[in-house]
Amino acid sequence: MATPLILSRRDVDFLLYEWLNVTALTARQRFAEHSKETFDAVLDLAEELATDKFAPHNRLSDTDEPRVVDGVVRTPAPVRAAIEAFAQAGFLSGSADEAVGGSQLPTTVHRAALLWFQAANVATTGYLGLTMANASLLMEHGSAEQVATWVPALLEGRFLGTMCLSEPQAGSSLADIITKAQPQPDGSYRITGNKMWISGGDHELAENIVHLVLAKIPGGPPGVKGISLFIVPKILLDDEGRLAERNDVVLSGLNHKMGYRGTTNALLNFGEGGHRPGGAAGAVGYLVGEPHAGLAYMFHMMNEARIGVGLGAVALGYIGYLHAVEYARTRLQGRLLTDRRPDAPQVPIIEHSDVRRMLLAQKSYVEGGLALGLYCSMLVDEHRTTTDDTVRRRASLLIDVLTPIAKSWPSQWCLIANDLAIQVHGGYGYTRDYPVEQFYRDNRLNAIHEGTHGVQALDLLGRKLSMDGGAGLMVLIETIHGTIAKGVAAGGDIAAAATELAAALDRLTAVTARLYSTGDPALTLANATVYLEAAGHLVVAWMWLEQLLVVGDRTEPFYAGKRHAARYFFRFELPKTKAQFDLLDSLDTTTLEMDTSWF
Amino acid sequence: MATPLILSRRDVDFLLYEWLNVTALTARQRFAEHSKETFDAVLDLAEELATDKFAPHNRLSDTDEPRVVDGVVRTPAPVRAAIEAFAQAGFLSGSADEAVGGSQLPTTVHRAALLWFQAANVATTGYLGLTMANASLLMEHGSAEQVATWVPALLEGRFLGTMCLSEPQAGSSLADIITKAQPQPDGSYRITGNKMWISGGDHELAENIVHLVLAKIPGGPPGVKGISLFIVPKILLDDEGRLAERNDVVLSGLNHKMGYRGTTNALLNFGEGGHRPGGAAGAVGYLVGEPHAGLAYMFHMMNEARIGVGLGAVALGYIGYLHAVEYARTRLQGRLLTDRRPDAPQVPIIEHSDVRRMLLAQKSYVEGGLALGLYCSMLVDEHRTTTDDTVRRRASLLIDVLTPIAKSWPSQWCLIANDLAIQVHGGYGYTRDYPVEQFYRDNRLNAIHEGTHGVQALDLLGRKLSMDGGAGLMVLIETIHGTIAKGVAAGGDIAAAATELAAALDRLTAVTARLYSTGDPALTLANATVYLEAAGHLVVAWMWLEQLLVVGDRTEPFYAGKRHAARYFFRFELPKTKAQFDLLDSLDTTTLEMDTSWF
Repeated sequence: MATPLILSRRDVDFLLYEWLNVTALTARQRFAEHSKETFDAVLDLAEELATDKFAPHNRLSDTDEPRVVDGVVRTPAPVRAAIEAFAQAGFLSGSADEAVGGSQLPTTVHRAALLWFQAANVATTGYLGLTMANASLLMEHGSAEQVATWVPALLEGRFLGTMCLSEPQAGSSLADIITKAQPQPDGSYRITGNKMWISGGDHELAENIVHLVLAKIPGGPPGVKGISLFIVPKILLDDEGRLAERNDVVLSGLNHKMGYRGTTNALLNFGEGGHRPGGAAGAVGYLVGEPHAGLAYMFHMMNEARIGVGLGAVALGYIGYLHAVEYARTRLQGRLLTDRRPDAPQVPIIEHSDVRRMLLAQKSYVEGGLALGLYCSMLVDEHRTTTDDTVRRRASLLIDVLTPIAKSWPSQWCLIANDLAIQVHGGYGYTRDYPVEQFYRDNRLNAIHEGTHGVQALDLLGRKLSMDGGAGLMVLIETIHGTIAKGVAAGGDIAAAATELAAALDRLTAVTARLYSTGDPALTLANATVYLEAAGHLVVAWMWLEQLLVVGDRTEPFYAGKRHAARYFFRFELPKTKAQFDLLDSLDTTTLEMDTSWF
Repeated sequence: MATPLILSRRDVDFLLYEWLNVTALTARQRFAEHSKETFDAVLDLAEELATDKFAPHNRLSDTDEPRVVDGVVRTPAPVRAAIEAFAQAGFLSGSADEAVGGSQLPTTVHRAALLWFQAANVATTGYLGLTMANASLLMEHGSAEQVATWVPALLEGRFLGTMCLSEPQAGSSLADIITKAQPQPDGSYRITGNKMWISGGDHELAENIVHLVLAKIPGGPPGVKGISLFIVPKILLDDEGRLAERNDVVLSGLNHKMGYRGTTNALLNFGEGGHRPGGAAGAVGYLVGEPHAGLAYMFHMMNEARIGVGLGAVALGYIGYLHAVEYARTRLQGRLLTDRRPDAPQVPIIEHSDVRRMLLAQKSYVEGGLALGLYCSMLVDEHRTTTDDTVRRRASLLIDVLTPIAKSWPSQWCLIANDLAIQVHGGYGYTRDYPVEQFYRDNRLNAIHEGTHGVQALDLLGRKLSMDGGAGLMVLIETIHGTIAKGVAAGGDIAAAATELAAALDRLTAVTARLYSTGDPALTLANATVYLEAAGHLVVAWMWLEQLLVVGDRTEPFYAGKRHAARYFFRFELPKTKAQFDLLDSLDTTTLEMDTSWF
């Protein structure tokens, strides 16, 4: 069997080495043990493992979804084998500190490696992504004892992790969670409540599950200011860290989803008496950090997770694109407009201009999205390791402003790429004999979880851009202007693209000022999602200009493809923002004035 | 159980009676037996039957898809019961001539009634739609004997019908079909070949299946000019019309689709020797009409079928919209921007402006698409029954030009409506516990079958607009200008919308002239799909202006909702065409100049 199409190593190399120059990070102390060779080895290994252990059961993850048998969640055998292989290869601890057994890889390289797994089998990778986020949060905010107790097991894959935020009555609105945490004389807490949408919430894929649970300590402040964070293991540990008694965390039911089916998604009951650890009521939980500070800890993790969601959307868009190109090169159908004689041979459909349009659109979305995700990851590395306070401050502001875009833009446009991949395949793409319909279904989740599209829009316009007197917006504008200046200096087509981007940036700047000038939050935010989408297209056009600068005047097919995808984006995509800026500039009130009785 | 949400009778009544004035058709001889009362009775019955017999097994159609057991295709029991109820109620023959037992309903009313079935259970309705199209084609082009033999059984639902066009090596490219039809001394033919994507291709839902098969008679002209049409029944009839010997049509396999799962979709082998009727090789087929004229017959039917595909897409978009509104009214989540106190009660999500944006978008797409589909149906009735040659000619031209739009626009935008319905539901919408994800998957087929989106684009720009020296385009422009003139005369917001539409129409006119001025078909058609999409948005804006004229200054909630949805379309949607017209006007060659090696 040929190597499956998963991701383009050539493109990843281009972005990491020719554009972002990740090798320069090895000059920093944290990454001093690394080199281009170690980075390459990690990427090689990711491709190999994803190909051998993840891709082969991707369809099985979809068709044979987790089910409850005798109270136990059953998953197909290859899932566990893949998780173990991933852990053994050290990917779980790839970017973690050496002190906890990690490899101290730059986040950028680690994230790039993870793309292969996300593309090859997003459902199995889901368990691993959550576990890494869980460990990462504990390393950042847990006590030394908590880190020692839980983190090594998580990074070795012996335990897997979850994030328990939502409740049935509180999805996006975390202020309304009602799960309670009652303090105990021994310093632990007893947790009672129900948590919804818990990915990896129950399974037998590891020895234990470490739930990170948001709950309220009675007597705390109302709303989000009264939320605390707890470690609630499925199985309690004894004093020597060995698996002991079952905690009172009980599976209430599994959710059956449109896609992403292989990742168990559960409703969990905490402390409803299914078990009584130590003979008392409630699930045992351990407070992380300070009381009432849980949401801040969670969002610290969530912001990095959102960049990861965006990259997951890119990965699925990318694998779909590669399949579409392969299909279009091999599928014979129809004739050229220039030779329609019925006895002329049929041509590969890639010869039809509309098929090329659909492939170019996909290419511009997935390569643009990938550039954005890796750029943001590089900012995370910069922020973590720079010794220059100004650089750190700028990186922090850019991360804040770009995160809602890095999460939402690929979730929207790489999903459209998946839709176009189906369309390129025609009727075959609509069948489950080809993988593209699954890629679509899997990817559809990304605009919903970790903050919906609408939530990202409010985060961007309602919070991130106005923070610190608009410092984030200013840094973003300055940074993009820097690229534009280089583009203008480059001349030719690159300068033309730079000029287009400059015009769009001027409009964004003016429109943002106008929106903030209203003094009426409802009016400012009435079309926040339109703003998010316009800003997203502008930012991705910037990513394309950045790539064009690296391409320069090189003419090899890879570079010619980059140049042409950029051309597509500047001619077919960026102009879409004009109508969006017009609408925003008009302070349109259509959504506000729609009476609910009129629907 | 409450009446399921399927479709808005109020909206259908508005479009049929207040706008299109279908009641006026009863003055025509063909419809003289009808009245508003009979139309209402048909719509009432459709809603009742769809509610009782189709909606309840919609999820079952998805989860329990047809499968082959001992060589026989098994379908869930309620499918057959629904088909029988539909036939018994006379819907199969609703618009057919009285001479064959039909009710001679206007197509417009018949199509409106069918919407309930398409929305309630598109998969089960699929068998019926194909059967009606099959009977309709035979009535138009079959001999008197063929009509007498097959049509009554089809219209009574004793036999079901299929259309066999595609072959594994020839999907959209019918010129390349290789199925052969060998003439026999008795005037029949023997058919050999393989047909792909045959909806309703095999099952036990009726006594017999009547396949209409495109095949080539040896010695005929090459390409599409050598295609003939044949009746090929699954079971042959004896001289007295009774079921007799099995014909050589054999199920080779079922396709398993992303959605539309309840409609069996098969690969069929004709004449491969699974049976040998009369002891000889090949499946017995009967030529319809003249040799080598089959494609024209098929397309005559296909054009009406394409309007039906568009209406099917509308139906699925509409039911999704109604579910999204219902969910948004009842789901409590979050607070208003004007009262974010954590102890304020949560509000229904319909109070959030972004949710209202998503609902308004859906409303504008599904109601706009419905108006377009019914308008086209009205043109079909006009064309069939007017005694005025000029009116008939104009109706014919408008049908030609509007059909690719009436097929593709709802397939694109009512699918986006389904996507937004999922988004309004959040995580719940992504589960199979709610119906909206199935609506999406079912609707995804509509941009592929009966001519893909790209094929519709070539049909519009490469054929329909240039036919008869551009007569179709001229009539379309004149007709839209007629509406614009009324809009301008109405003053106020309606006049403002009319002015916007006039500007877009001017651009369409200019861009079309520019595209045709190139003298290079490849250049003219390089961005045909962008043209199709721009023209589609313009046409639907026209449909909204038409509705605004009916609404006038009425203020009841239903009319206020129409006015506001129109406002949404004119402010958020129509302006999208500007960038498209700019691109088309530039005669952009990006898709043409993309070398295939650059992907």
